[in-house]
Amino acid sequence: MNTLGIDHVGVAVDNLEEAIKLYTEKVGMKLVHKEDLPDRGIRVAFLVGDDGVAAVELMEPMNHDDPNNTVAKFIKSKGQGMHHLAVKVRDISESLKEMEAMGMNLIDKGPRRGARGHLVAFVHPKSVMGVLLELVQEAHH
Amino acid sequence: MNTLGIDHVGVAVDNLEEAIKLYTEKVGMKLVHKEDLPDRGIRVAFLVGDDGVAAVELMEPMNHDDPNNTVAKFIKSKGQGMHHLAVKVRDISESLKEMEAMGMNLIDKGPRRGARGHLVAFVHPKSVMGVLLELVQEAHH
Repeated sequence: MNTLGIDHVGVAVDNLEEAIKLYTEKVGMKLVHKEDLPDRGIRVAFLVGDDGVAAVELMEPMNHDDPNNTVAKFIKSKGQGMHHLAVKVRDISESLKEMEAMGMNLIDKGPRRGARGHLVAFVHPKSVMGVLLELVQEAHH
Repeated sequence: MNTLGIDHVGVAVDNLEEAIKLYTEKVGMKLVHKEDLPDRGIRVAFLVGDDGVAAVELMEPMNHDDPNNTVAKFIKSKGQGMHHLAVKVRDISESLKEMEAMGMNLIDKGPRRGARGHLVAFVHPKSVMGVLLELVQEAHH
């Protein structure tokens, strides 16, 4: 398989609006998308620099005390910070098959609909030296 | 200030060669640069996807038991994983001045020479909601 590039870096935050303010006013990025993902219990925002290529995805849990909310659990145990690394692939189903054949531990055996309508799937950090890896196939492919 | 885009994501690893193998063979990225940074006590490798834009920087401490090696300490306390987020800026000295004026906690008050000959400076995670932020000004600017 080959990776088209980095799609985004997921960052877990306590408060999405304050985080958007920080990243736009102090880090100098531009807000390009905001979305609620009720399936995952999070609100997200995507920000990019001038090149518009790789994004920062800010993620706030809808319920900070929900023990089943993975982002809320992440913040409770580790604090705010970088949560996952997402790479773009051309054919996510094919990539998942190849990764499974290589013995990687897949959290999602098949693609599901993620933010921005894209197809996404997560690979367990145990298989990626501590990095929670997300595969993203753009919706228009 | 404004950010040109994401330059790279720094990932702390136990073994650089094994990590390069993982990222090339299983994640599908290409190795574009390898360098020893004796000042920081680390060996690094940069990998990109087809777009060649944002990179993954794999970092292995030269001495895993050195209490002054920040990457070794990071791995000992948190395990392998994402360590910092680096954004490209046009004029790093100007960006640092603006950030200081906005009350951000700068680890490096001025730019220093980092990997690939670029000018770099780190901003404390306390000022970036838990994210260790690196500013990068490309050497040829």
